[in-house]
Amino acid sequence: MALIVQKYGGTSVGSTERIKNVAKRVARWKAMGHDVVVVPSAMSGETNRLIGLAKEISATPSPRELDVIASTGEQVTIGLLAMAIQEEGLKAKSYTGSQVRVLTDSTFTKARILQIDDERMRKDLAEGNVVVVAGFQGADENGNITTLGRGGSDTSAVALAAALKADECQIYTDVDGVYTTDPRVVPEARKLDTITFEEMLEMASLGSKVLQIRSVEFAGKYKVKLRVLSSFQDEGEGTLITVEDDKNMEQPIISGIAFNRDEAKLTVLGVPDRPGIAYQILGPIADANIDVDMIIQNVGVDGTTDFSFTVNRSEYTKAMAVLEQVKQHVGAREIVGDNKTCKVSAVGVGMRSHPGVASQMFRTLAEEGINIQMISTSEIKISVVIDEKYLELAVRILHKTFGLDQA
Amino acid sequence: MALIVQKYGGTSVGSTERIKNVAKRVARWKAMGHDVVVVPSAMSGETNRLIGLAKEISATPSPRELDVIASTGEQVTIGLLAMAIQEEGLKAKSYTGSQVRVLTDSTFTKARILQIDDERMRKDLAEGNVVVVAGFQGADENGNITTLGRGGSDTSAVALAAALKADECQIYTDVDGVYTTDPRVVPEARKLDTITFEEMLEMASLGSKVLQIRSVEFAGKYKVKLRVLSSFQDEGEGTLITVEDDKNMEQPIISGIAFNRDEAKLTVLGVPDRPGIAYQILGPIADANIDVDMIIQNVGVDGTTDFSFTVNRSEYTKAMAVLEQVKQHVGAREIVGDNKTCKVSAVGVGMRSHPGVASQMFRTLAEEGINIQMISTSEIKISVVIDEKYLELAVRILHKTFGLDQA
Repeated sequence: MALIVQKYGGTSVGSTERIKNVAKRVARWKAMGHDVVVVPSAMSGETNRLIGLAKEISATPSPRELDVIASTGEQVTIGLLAMAIQEEGLKAKSYTGSQVRVLTDSTFTKARILQIDDERMRKDLAEGNVVVVAGFQGADENGNITTLGRGGSDTSAVALAAALKADECQIYTDVDGVYTTDPRVVPEARKLDTITFEEMLEMASLGSKVLQIRSVEFAGKYKVKLRVLSSFQDEGEGTLITVEDDKNMEQPIISGIAFNRDEAKLTVLGVPDRPGIAYQILGPIADANIDVDMIIQNVGVDGTTDFSFTVNRSEYTKAMAVLEQVKQHVGAREIVGDNKTCKVSAVGVGMRSHPGVASQMFRTLAEEGINIQMISTSEIKISVVIDEKYLELAVRILHKTFGLDQA
Repeated sequence: MALIVQKYGGTSVGSTERIKNVAKRVARWKAMGHDVVVVPSAMSGETNRLIGLAKEISATPSPRELDVIASTGEQVTIGLLAMAIQEEGLKAKSYTGSQVRVLTDSTFTKARILQIDDERMRKDLAEGNVVVVAGFQGADENGNITTLGRGGSDTSAVALAAALKADECQIYTDVDGVYTTDPRVVPEARKLDTITFEEMLEMASLGSKVLQIRSVEFAGKYKVKLRVLSSFQDEGEGTLITVEDDKNMEQPIISGIAFNRDEAKLTVLGVPDRPGIAYQILGPIADANIDVDMIIQNVGVDGTTDFSFTVNRSEYTKAMAVLEQVKQHVGAREIVGDNKTCKVSAVGVGMRSHPGVASQMFRTLAEEGINIQMISTSEIKISVVIDEKYLELAVRILHKTFGLDQA
């Protein structure tokens, strides 16, 4: 008998019909003899509806009050889900974040979990209840309602699993696991049985939006066994996210090819090569609330250097406008940009011990005539920025080159 | 400077536009130098929507989980209203019932308030905040969310006013006060400046559904000064609900004519006149969840008696079926019924000291050829059941007879 925490996303609880299906799934796990804690999101569309109401009242709504409103989405789902589980003949009790004392800091709309009191849940589980806890929310030390930000239900589930020392945290979503790449681009893409936390972090931040990054970090830190599964299929083991040591020694060098279509590239040419220049360029960008992805600065020549970074394509025009002002200030020569680019990355912990991966990637792209505009690497990933028209081609040939289409 | 508790019903906060209007009204009271605690209901239609979702999951939803769901309606409104008040340049903070510790018993879906902790609200008020508290809800001693039943927001407001020793509790609704009778039936109906708690109780239970009965009882018990006002008009003092002693000595004998269209009458003829017979008849009716209004049993003749009562017209068929079974059991002669009846009542504390009221009422009805089918009286009201076709006529002539059309 194990203790399982199951998280269901907004699509999985998007209608009362789907909530009933979730209840049936929970009942099956319970019938196998397991204790189950369920963490649902709000019904899909509900959080947007609630925030829409707030925006009708105020262009800059109070974050405290926004959380009071937004947290009701999950509160409705826990009640409905507990009822549906009871209809399966089981005992069930629902709790809001405040009620189980999911203690957070007071950063409304993006609070961080500090502590969870597991006493009440343990007592209910011991009495045979399925415990249903609202994801995405908690309360600060003064009892103010807080929310964890978009996708926060994943983090709630992992934190609850950590607090309860659960045997497994299952994230149910609309895909049946983590793939070697997007199957819509490469039909030969395979579902991975396992992936390491580090790889998952790289995959997630690179656009494979299966799990919220923070929840993966959290799971890694607290050694929570995390599994991604489909809520629309009854079969399948999904993908288990493991610490590296658990992985088979025979693991492939590369686990997957991630990509991001919406990349735009900006370069400041002829920047004086002196300390503080990166901050002088990126400070104003951050002040304008623009998220920066890759950052590259090459060694300087003749006292000047070139500074490049990428942003989401939707922020390209805004970022260019900021840079035009920065240009005067730092005394740069020219600003150039390109919003018809994309990013392709090979990810895998195996590349640590296989130095040839980067050159194999570059050679493969060169053979197809694909020009590499930017390169960025970490210990377990290599990313390149290329012309967006080569995206599918690059993903397909890299997927094949690294043998990802082979079982 | 006074401390005012204001309650706004579902229609008054039925859209974000209306919530903004409520905020403007609150701001005006604040500008006059008053401290304000606001208690909104859920946006109109929202509670029904939420209960509808629950019914899709279960025909007999768990009351505990129903309260988890239903309480979110008011939680959304408090957040929106606090934001709207902030947009008026004021400080505002919202609280759920749990957060201000509206302690109730554990009777889910119709809990009763036991105690309210006023410390947090007093602190916020002292710091210049408008405090917005969710109506209709509380939490039991174990922190489970409870609701007070339909119309419970009135009770919340009165209980908060009592706990805070507020100078006045204002109930904003879609009418501008309590009238001598329904103006749609009698155009000459006048708004009352004052009415006693007892009269209000009789008026409310007789169909003038301005205030929830429980809130009026509560206000009477704790001596809360209660005022009914329109949320759609900026002028007007509404109707103040007072303890009797406050009333002018020159008060009229009758304060209003109340009526109920949906009355159905049932009579058990030839019932053995022995102890326990009323229970044997009404016990099965109560078991069938049918609410009984008037009950009349006349003195027995020759060892048998006739037993009559009225129910809401929608329950008539069900009640008749129950009585057919009861008939065998108690050995009654016959069951007769009529669902084309209505009830008309004259209400006024003045009739205590004016014994001629009943006969004046009966004479007036007789002069118009209206047959009285049943009579029931209390200290401050006289009710008659008559054929429904005479409803408007009876209300109009009684309104005139008792001088209610005169200022």
